[in-house]
Amino acid sequence: MTTLTTSKEYEQLIKQTKDATLLGTSISLLHWDQEVMMPKKGIDFRADQIALTSRMYHEMCIDPKINDWLCACEEDSELVGDPTSDAAANVREIRHAYERTTKLPTSLVEEEAKLSSRGQNAWAEARKNNDFSEFQPWLEKIVALLQQKAECYGWADGGEPWDALAEDYEPGCTAAAVSEVFTPLREKLQTLLDAIMGSSTTPSNAFNEVALPIAEQQAFVRAIAEQIGFDFDAGRLDESTHPFCSGTHCKDVRLTTRFHENNVNDAIGSTMHEVGHGIYEQGLLYKHVGTPMGTAVSLGIHESQSRMWENQVGRSEAFWKWCHPKMTEFFGDRVASLSFDDVYGGANIVRPDFIRVEADEATYNMHIMIRFELERMMMKGDLAVADLPDAWNQRYRDYLGIDVPSDTKGCLQDIHWSMTSMGYFPTYTLGNLYCAQFFETALEAHPDLYEQFARGEFGTLKSWLNENIHKHGRLYRAADLCEVVTGKTLSSDPLMRHLESKLKPLYGLA
Amino acid sequence: MTTLTTSKEYEQLIKQTKDATLLGTSISLLHWDQEVMMPKKGIDFRADQIALTSRMYHEMCIDPKINDWLCACEEDSELVGDPTSDAAANVREIRHAYERTTKLPTSLVEEEAKLSSRGQNAWAEARKNNDFSEFQPWLEKIVALLQQKAECYGWADGGEPWDALAEDYEPGCTAAAVSEVFTPLREKLQTLLDAIMGSSTTPSNAFNEVALPIAEQQAFVRAIAEQIGFDFDAGRLDESTHPFCSGTHCKDVRLTTRFHENNVNDAIGSTMHEVGHGIYEQGLLYKHVGTPMGTAVSLGIHESQSRMWENQVGRSEAFWKWCHPKMTEFFGDRVASLSFDDVYGGANIVRPDFIRVEADEATYNMHIMIRFELERMMMKGDLAVADLPDAWNQRYRDYLGIDVPSDTKGCLQDIHWSMTSMGYFPTYTLGNLYCAQFFETALEAHPDLYEQFARGEFGTLKSWLNENIHKHGRLYRAADLCEVVTGKTLSSDPLMRHLESKLKPLYGLA
Repeated sequence: MTTLTTSKEYEQLIKQTKDATLLGTSISLLHWDQEVMMPKKGIDFRADQIALTSRMYHEMCIDPKINDWLCACEEDSELVGDPTSDAAANVREIRHAYERTTKLPTSLVEEEAKLSSRGQNAWAEARKNNDFSEFQPWLEKIVALLQQKAECYGWADGGEPWDALAEDYEPGCTAAAVSEVFTPLREKLQTLLDAIMGSSTTPSNAFNEVALPIAEQQAFVRAIAEQIGFDFDAGRLDESTHPFCSGTHCKDVRLTTRFHENNVNDAIGSTMHEVGHGIYEQGLLYKHVGTPMGTAVSLGIHESQSRMWENQVGRSEAFWKWCHPKMTEFFGDRVASLSFDDVYGGANIVRPDFIRVEADEATYNMHIMIRFELERMMMKGDLAVADLPDAWNQRYRDYLGIDVPSDTKGCLQDIHWSMTSMGYFPTYTLGNLYCAQFFETALEAHPDLYEQFARGEFGTLKSWLNENIHKHGRLYRAADLCEVVTGKTLSSDPLMRHLESKLKPLYGLA
Repeated sequence: MTTLTTSKEYEQLIKQTKDATLLGTSISLLHWDQEVMMPKKGIDFRADQIALTSRMYHEMCIDPKINDWLCACEEDSELVGDPTSDAAANVREIRHAYERTTKLPTSLVEEEAKLSSRGQNAWAEARKNNDFSEFQPWLEKIVALLQQKAECYGWADGGEPWDALAEDYEPGCTAAAVSEVFTPLREKLQTLLDAIMGSSTTPSNAFNEVALPIAEQQAFVRAIAEQIGFDFDAGRLDESTHPFCSGTHCKDVRLTTRFHENNVNDAIGSTMHEVGHGIYEQGLLYKHVGTPMGTAVSLGIHESQSRMWENQVGRSEAFWKWCHPKMTEFFGDRVASLSFDDVYGGANIVRPDFIRVEADEATYNMHIMIRFELERMMMKGDLAVADLPDAWNQRYRDYLGIDVPSDTKGCLQDIHWSMTSMGYFPTYTLGNLYCAQFFETALEAHPDLYEQFARGEFGTLKSWLNENIHKHGRLYRAADLCEVVTGKTLSSDPLMRHLESKLKPLYGLA
C-alpha cells in the first residue's frame, strides 16, 4: 500500500537523495561514454573527471543531515509504520546505503574511481595483447584496495572479507550461503552434463557456422529488441567489447551488445539478455525516479530479468517458431539452408567452453562457480594475483574438462574485476535461479505464454513482469520478493526442471 | 616567454580552476549527449541533471577563496610582471571570468541551464512542425532572462544590454563597434553582390543536384577530415540537426555534421567548418588543460579557424584539384558526369537564400547582420518576440531580396537563441574577417600553400596555425593576437580581396 503520509524531514531526505541521483547518473554517463563513445586519448582526463565527480557524489551521500532526517523519519510511526509503504521502503533503503557509505573515507572512494577507470583501460589493452602481466599490477592494486574497503565495511561473525563486498550487489548475501546453494546445484548439473556429454545425439551446429554481415545483424537484433518490448524512445542499443546495460533512469536506458560475423546466435542471445535488463529498468516508475523505490532490488533480481528473455524466452522452441521465419526477412537467401531444427537446436547446444558470456545455460553456472571461488580466495589472501592464471586454468580443467588456450580466453575475458567489482559474479547464478522460479509462476498465471511467443507476442509476459516485479522498485528485498511473487522460498528445482525438460529431448535423453 | 615563477596561491588557484573545468566539461558531455545520443524521453531528467551540475559548477567558480588567491597573485610582481607569461595570462583571464561570474546569482544560472535545455527541445519540435507559436513562449522566457542577466553584468556608458552578453563570446565587443564594422562591409559586399547578380555568367549547378547515398557521404567527409589533419584518436565526428564542435579538451574533441542525399557539397562544407574548430581545439596544449592558457581566445578567433578550412581552403581551386579525383574513389560512376568546373564552380555559387548555414561566402554576412540587428532590438525591448517572424522576413526582403517561405526556413533555423545565446552571431563575421587576414599572412610565409593543397597536403597550413594561433591559448586577446600574427589591426580589405579575386573570374567579372 502506498501511504500519502509525509513530513518535512522526509521531503528533505528525498530531495537530497534525488539530487545525489542527478549527479550519480551524470557519472554513469561519463562511464557509458568512456565505454561506447570516447576517443581513446581521452582516458586520462576522463579518469580525473570521474574521480572529482565521484568525490562530490560521495560528499553528498555522507552529508550528516541525512542521518538527522533519517532519525526523524524512523521515529515517525505514521510515516514508516507500514513496512510495505513507499516511504518506509525508501527510509529503510536510504538508511542501508547511508550506513554503507559513511564507513568509507572520501580518499578511498576517489582512489577506487580512478583505479576503476585506469584498470579498465589496462585490462582492455592486456586482453587485446593476451598479456596478463600488463594487467597484473593493476589487479594487485585493485585487490589491495578492495581488502581495505572490506575492512572499512566489516562483516558478520563467522563471515569473511568477500561478504562485505557482496552486500553492495546482493544485500544479505554471504560467501558461506552462496557455497551452500552452489554445491548441491553443481552436483545436479554435473549429472545432467555427464548425460549430455555421453549422448550420441547432438543438435546440428549449422546455425553457429553461418556468416552474416554485421550491418544486417544489427538491424535484426534491433527489430527483436523492439518486438519484445524495449522502448527506443527511452533507450539506446550500441556496441561495446563487453555488453552491458547502463540504467540511468527509466526513460534513458542504454544497452550495448556485440557482433561476430559468423555468430548471429551470440548477438541474439547477448541482445536479448541486455534487453531483459533494459525492460526491467524501463519498468521502474518515473514517479519514484532518484529514490530507492525507483531502483532495482538487487543484481540477482536484475539478472533474473535478463536471463528470462535470454533463456526462458530466447532459447525456447516457441520463440524460434516466430524467429526462424523472421530471419529470412533480414538475411534472405543467406539463411535459406537453415531448418527450424538447425536454429532451435543450434541455440541450445551444450558444450564446455572457455568464454562465460558465450556459454550455454547448462555450463554457465560452472563459469560462475570458478570466478566465485577465485575472488573469494583473492579477497581472503589465499591466492596471489600472480597465481591467478594458473588457478583459473586448473579449475577449467577440473570442472569443465577443458584446457584454456590463452589468458584472453581465460582470466582476462571479463571486465568485472578491472572495474573493482568483486562479490558480483554469483549474482548471475542467483539470477538464473530466481528467473526459473518466476517464469514457472508466470506460466501458471498465463498457461498460453509459449503459444503467444510463437506468434511473436511478448506483451503478456512483459506486463506480468512490470506488475509483479518492476513496479515495486526496492519495496521488497530479493528473498522477500521471491516469496511474495512465487509463494515459495528460492529453490534450485525450477531451474533444473527447465534445463532437463528442454535439453533431454534435444540430446535424446527423454 | 614562459616563466617558471610560481607561488602557493597560484598553485591553489590553478588547482581550483582545473577542478572546475573537470566538472564543467562533464556538463559539456551532458549537453553533447543530449544533442547526439540521448533518447528523446530523457529530456526532462537531463534538464534536471544539467541544472544541478551547473549550480555546483557555479558554486565552484564563485568560491571567495578564488578572489583571495587572485589578489595575492596580482600583487606578486615576479609572477605576473611579464604580461606575456603563462601565469600572467592565466591570472588575468581567471580574474575576468571571476568578475563576470560573481555578478550572477546562483538561481539565475540554474534557471538559464534549465531554460536552455528545455528551450532547445521546444525549438527542435517547433522547427520540425514549422510552428513558431510552439517556440514563442520559450523565446519570451529566454529574452526576459537574458535582459535580467545583462542587468546583472551591466555595460559601459553609452552601451546597451547586448554588450553585456557579447562579452562572454568576444571580450571587449560592443553593439556600436560591431555596427561600425558591419555598415561599411555591407556596402562593399552589396557592390560585389550587385555585380554578381547582374552577370550573365554563372557556374554550373550540377554539383548541387547529384544524389549520393548518405553512407558514402559519411565515409567521404570522414576521409577529408583525416586528410586535413583531424585526429580521430582525440575526437569524434557524428551527426546532429545543427552541426557543432564540442571542445571538451584537446584530446577529446567532438564534432557533428549533417547530410542531405542530394547535397554532398553541404556535407563537405559543414564538415570542413567543424573540423576547423576541431583542429583549433586539438591544437591547444594539454599541459595547459583546464586553465585559460589551454582555452581558445574568443568565438571570433575560433570562427576564423573554421572559416579558414571551410572557405579559404575548402572552396579554393587548389583544394578541388585534389578533391575532384578523390570523389571518384568514394562515389564511383555516380560522379562521373561532374567536371572540375562543375565541382569548383558548384562550391562557389553565390545566390541569396534563406538558410545561413547553407549560405555562400558572399551572402553569408548578410544573414549575420539580420540576426545581429534583431537580437540587439529584442534585448533593448524594441522588438517583441511575437513580432520576430515578421521582422525577420522583412529584412530578408530588404537585404537579400527574397521572400522567406516558412519559419522553419526563417527565424526557427538556428539553435542559438533557443540555447540562450545572444551576442553570439556577429562573431561569425568577425571570424571571416580575422580568417582572411590570417590566411594572407600564412600565404606570405608559405607562398606555395595552394600548390600543396592541390597535392592533398594540408600539414604546412595546420602547423602554421598550431604555431601562430593555437598553442598560445588565451595568451592574447583577439585584437592583440591579430596584431601579433599579422602585424596589422583588423581590416575588411583581406576578406574583400579574397572574395573578389575568386568570385569575379567565376562570374565573368574579372
